Amino acid sequence: MLDLLGTLERTHTCGELRAADAGKEVVLLGWVNRRRDHGNLIFLDLRDRTGIAQVVLDKDLGAEAHLKAEQARPEYVIAAIGKVRLRGKDVINPKMPTGEVEIVASEIRLLNDSKVPPFSPAEDAIGNEEVRLKYRYLDLRRPEMQHNFAVRHKVALAVRQYLSSQGFYEIETPFMTRSTPEGARDYLVPSRVHAGEFYALPQSPQLFKQILMISGFDRYFQIARCFRDEDLRADRQPEFTQIDLEMTFPQQQTVFRVVEGFLAAAFAAVGIKLPTPFPQITYDEAMRQFGIDKPDLRLPGLTDVKFAFAANDLETLAISPGLPIVAVRIPKVGELSRKERDDNRPLFDSRKGAKLIDDLKRLEKSFPDAVNKIREVTGAQSDDLVVLVAGDATAQLRMSDTKSAGRLSEREIAVYSAAGNFRVELARKYAVRHGAFAVTEQVVGSPERDAGQVDGSAAFRPIWVTDFPMFELDEETGRWMPSHHPFTSPHEEDMDRLVSDPASVRARYYDLAMNGLELGSGSIRIHQKAVQQEIFRALGMSDEEAKSRFGFFLEALEYGTPPHGGIALGLDRLVMILAGASSLREVIAFPKTAKAIDLMVDAPTPVSDMQLRELHIRTALKS
Amino acid sequence: MLDLLGTLERTHTCGELRAADAGKEVVLLGWVNRRRDHGNLIFLDLRDRTGIAQVVLDKDLGAEAHLKAEQARPEYVIAAIGKVRLRGKDVINPKMPTGEVEIVASEIRLLNDSKVPPFSPAEDAIGNEEVRLKYRYLDLRRPEMQHNFAVRHKVALAVRQYLSSQGFYEIETPFMTRSTPEGARDYLVPSRVHAGEFYALPQSPQLFKQILMISGFDRYFQIARCFRDEDLRADRQPEFTQIDLEMTFPQQQTVFRVVEGFLAAAFAAVGIKLPTPFPQITYDEAMRQFGIDKPDLRLPGLTDVKFAFAANDLETLAISPGLPIVAVRIPKVGELSRKERDDNRPLFDSRKGAKLIDDLKRLEKSFPDAVNKIREVTGAQSDDLVVLVAGDATAQLRMSDTKSAGRLSEREIAVYSAAGNFRVELARKYAVRHGAFAVTEQVVGSPERDAGQVDGSAAFRPIWVTDFPMFELDEETGRWMPSHHPFTSPHEEDMDRLVSDPASVRARYYDLAMNGLELGSGSIRIHQKAVQQEIFRALGMSDEEAKSRFGFFLEALEYGTPPHGGIALGLDRLVMILAGASSLREVIAFPKTAKAIDLMVDAPTPVSDMQLRELHIRTALKS
Repeated sequence: MLDLLGTLERTHTCGELRAADAGKEVVLLGWVNRRRDHGNLIFLDLRDRTGIAQVVLDKDLGAEAHLKAEQARPEYVIAAIGKVRLRGKDVINPKMPTGEVEIVASEIRLLNDSKVPPFSPAEDAIGNEEVRLKYRYLDLRRPEMQHNFAVRHKVALAVRQYLSSQGFYEIETPFMTRSTPEGARDYLVPSRVHAGEFYALPQSPQLFKQILMISGFDRYFQIARCFRDEDLRADRQPEFTQIDLEMTFPQQQTVFRVVEGFLAAAFAAVGIKLPTPFPQITYDEAMRQFGIDKPDLRLPGLTDVKFAFAANDLETLAISPGLPIVAVRIPKVGELSRKERDDNRPLFDSRKGAKLIDDLKRLEKSFPDAVNKIREVTGAQSDDLVVLVAGDATAQLRMSDTKSAGRLSEREIAVYSAAGNFRVELARKYAVRHGAFAVTEQVVGSPERDAGQVDGSAAFRPIWVTDFPMFELDEETGRWMPSHHPFTSPHEEDMDRLVSDPASVRARYYDLAMNGLELGSGSIRIHQKAVQQEIFRALGMSDEEAKSRFGFFLEALEYGTPPHGGIALGLDRLVMILAGASSLREVIAFPKTAKAIDLMVDAPTPVSDMQLRELHIRTALKS
Repeated sequence: MLDLLGTLERTHTCGELRAADAGKEVVLLGWVNRRRDHGNLIFLDLRDRTGIAQVVLDKDLGAEAHLKAEQARPEYVIAAIGKVRLRGKDVINPKMPTGEVEIVASEIRLLNDSKVPPFSPAEDAIGNEEVRLKYRYLDLRRPEMQHNFAVRHKVALAVRQYLSSQGFYEIETPFMTRSTPEGARDYLVPSRVHAGEFYALPQSPQLFKQILMISGFDRYFQIARCFRDEDLRADRQPEFTQIDLEMTFPQQQTVFRVVEGFLAAAFAAVGIKLPTPFPQITYDEAMRQFGIDKPDLRLPGLTDVKFAFAANDLETLAISPGLPIVAVRIPKVGELSRKERDDNRPLFDSRKGAKLIDDLKRLEKSFPDAVNKIREVTGAQSDDLVVLVAGDATAQLRMSDTKSAGRLSEREIAVYSAAGNFRVELARKYAVRHGAFAVTEQVVGSPERDAGQVDGSAAFRPIWVTDFPMFELDEETGRWMPSHHPFTSPHEEDMDRLVSDPASVRARYYDLAMNGLELGSGSIRIHQKAVQQEIFRALGMSDEEAKSRFGFFLEALEYGTPPHGGIALGLDRLVMILAGASSLREVIAFPKTAKAIDLMVDAPTPVSDMQLRELHIRTALKS
């Protein structure tokens, strides 16, 4: 028989009791984490969001309370009423914040019972992910998960407070809106009132936030849910949350300063100091230095070492003379065995005509001068791994060698990109040896975060990447696609090459990368109808198609649209980084599986015929 | 030809310039609100979110800038670069905060043009609502709308900050979830991956927030979008926003104190002092005193004045002797003409056996003693309107006279309710005369709100209504329905009457009313599976049906569910009150029409066959 809470109120949380509380009468409310029965003495570890307190029941001091405690099982919900006392010196538990005290209970109320759970929130060894997701409420009781959502709450609030202090209004945009599919598929919502018509869930508030700028709101933000019906990769969710903002009359730098401000505030909210401003690099420079548009600055970048080789060296090595020779350096890896070398080969992608030469150690005999020069220019120590990547002179490719307006050629990008991706793979593989990632883990896990500000300058390395190309050639369709989205403004001085040389047109598009992850991307937008139409045309969209998909927006552009720009950052990923979590599912309360199923509530499900009839739809199942 | 923003940055907003700024070089960016052309002198009123500044162009001082200003038209976006100067004494505009200064512009850039707008954001006379919604970006430029969203932003942030300070975490719950239709219809989202299956958009995060309590989060809140596919009344939206919260181990009063705290913070954020704690009243008392469960305390309540009449008076008046005679008093209405009296009659609802007797003035001759006593007990002044409402002795009704456990009978409720609704109608009709509502308008419109704290104690009259009946008889189906929702806990002492006398069972359900509007409702929830099942059964739900709809939740209740409770308040309505707006559409950036259409983006729309095929559905249109 269960007890009632009645008028009982908690006096303290389980996690807050300290030696100074000895002698106090307390009421604790929580879950039984563990029970140890020593006959006349029973110990209950009582758990709530804040921590664990030890409750002692002494049969001699109170038979009834002792009896209740005997009935208590793990995950029972109980009230413990009693007095705090200091533990004896030999039973102090220095690992528990409350380890100096215990509560001698005079009364126990069993507020609710629990079946034996499929896994215990008190144990580190938890069930497989499916079981965890089905019994999400048990999984969420674990201290790690409680911590993740505390972080998420603090981060979101800090972002809101900072943006508000900078004159941004949070404005809510609709969830049931118009389908304008592009890139990802829309999730649709059939209308009951308008037979045969559908709303779409927003892939992002992009057009609404631009409309808000046209509406004169000056500075808008929203922590907004977005929806994309994509084939889910391991760590992608059909619904996700982004920090979305937009401002009028911005310089690119204005947007950067705002983002740096709220990120510093978010890091500070969880005890980490993040220096600002962040460094900046152009897309072309990022490709040259890192071979990727989301550089991880915790490790050294790439170096073009072609200067070190003589022309006939290139011939010997079958290296394209017109392309860079890129040195990839991973510190402190030490010498590789033949087997390690062989195992690394498949990590290198040679499909686009890039060639993995070899590491310096193996080149030393044949090219001693070149190797010396390379060591010097890259600053490589003797235990660093340095491998070279170059263009394959024998490769048969349709890629172009021509450079437009001083930018990198397609083949150059291919070589840098192969080197950059290999760098990422080696960095991941040899993480224990180079130790650069451990710095991040140390800061994330540092107990000093609670106390004050831990220095995050080495652990978190943000960088702005700017001046992306406006278009990318879609290899399948041969069509030029926008690198970002079709509302991104080109550089004004590149406008006249939109048709003649689209590859050379730079966009006012920027990404924020941190530790090799893309945190967000944004752009200065097009604010003139004529330019917007020109871009739609450059993307192969007829005026008719543009009008039917974006007609309302093109019309809005005609009524006094100010220059504007903004950015969107993934909140889920940011929280994942700050909580030190290993997957987005650890920082989303009720995530879906890779098959877009909510295992706890069991969704999606079939619905009644009546519901379908009212919505004027039928299911069309293959028979 | 349009000008570029280039590297120009705003130095000041339009609304902030004052006499002390005279002599400063400024860059203003905004919209042309009005243009007055006096030949060599052109005046441009430049508008941004913060206000309006007067820009002067003197042809003699700069022909080029003057030429640009000549081209400028209303709603053009311009940059004005120039110097602030004091206006001459005779042209100071005391109505404008910036009225003491003007900007003598040396340069004007035309950043964008505008077609002649269908209505002008600068004018008070705006188009009809359809035009406003289609050109929402023009409508939102109006200062009133800018104000509304400033209020909305401040209120939402204040609520978040307060709740965070009280240990609440904001936790996001899913939008694509399980369909469990009840009350309102679900909006559905067809699944592409799982043919023939659907997600539903949440009508509220009810079950998720209870699951979060089962998960040990202790205190949760969310400012959450909710979706209901109902037939829209004039001022209802298919998607709306609620302040949703839940806590473990609460007393009812714990919830009240939290809500009072965040409401006081929200009011304070817009300059209004709201006294706490709020008064409380039981549902029965509210019916007795106000005849309605959302009392407007700005006007006097009802009084049972049966004591004033003799038995034969009742017979003369054909009044049911077993029912109350309810006096409705509206102050300062003055004497009514016969026509006014006749016009009021249709405002009274006599369908449930209530009878409108007459007003005191007309009863005076026949029942002088009674009228004197009534004046005394109600405190009516001579210019107050007092009407009497009673039970109609001649009415033929199926309603029951029996009272369960000291509660009001159905017939008593019918009489009080007729009186209460009539009170509301009369109060609305005679608002100008009694003046009680004007107090609210004054506080809302008070310019002193910007400066500091305006006293809101007379203008805003919140009240908690508690102890609602657990069930209501659905008159159409004859089934007992939950007054709130089926997760509401009954009073423990009423549990044994669940089946024998459902009408007498009180719920631990509470509403917050303010000025006659329902602001929110909540309850202490059921935390035991057995009780939850019993309630489902009492509502006529078979165990099978309960399992198929709420199986996951019933299972969760078995694993250590703590006592918990919470509340949800409508954010849209709260903002409407605080902004002094007249409709929800004024405080939602992109609202839908009563037919659930977004006129700006034009949604819903038909979608492509390909989209439907991918989602495994077909439209089923009537031919």
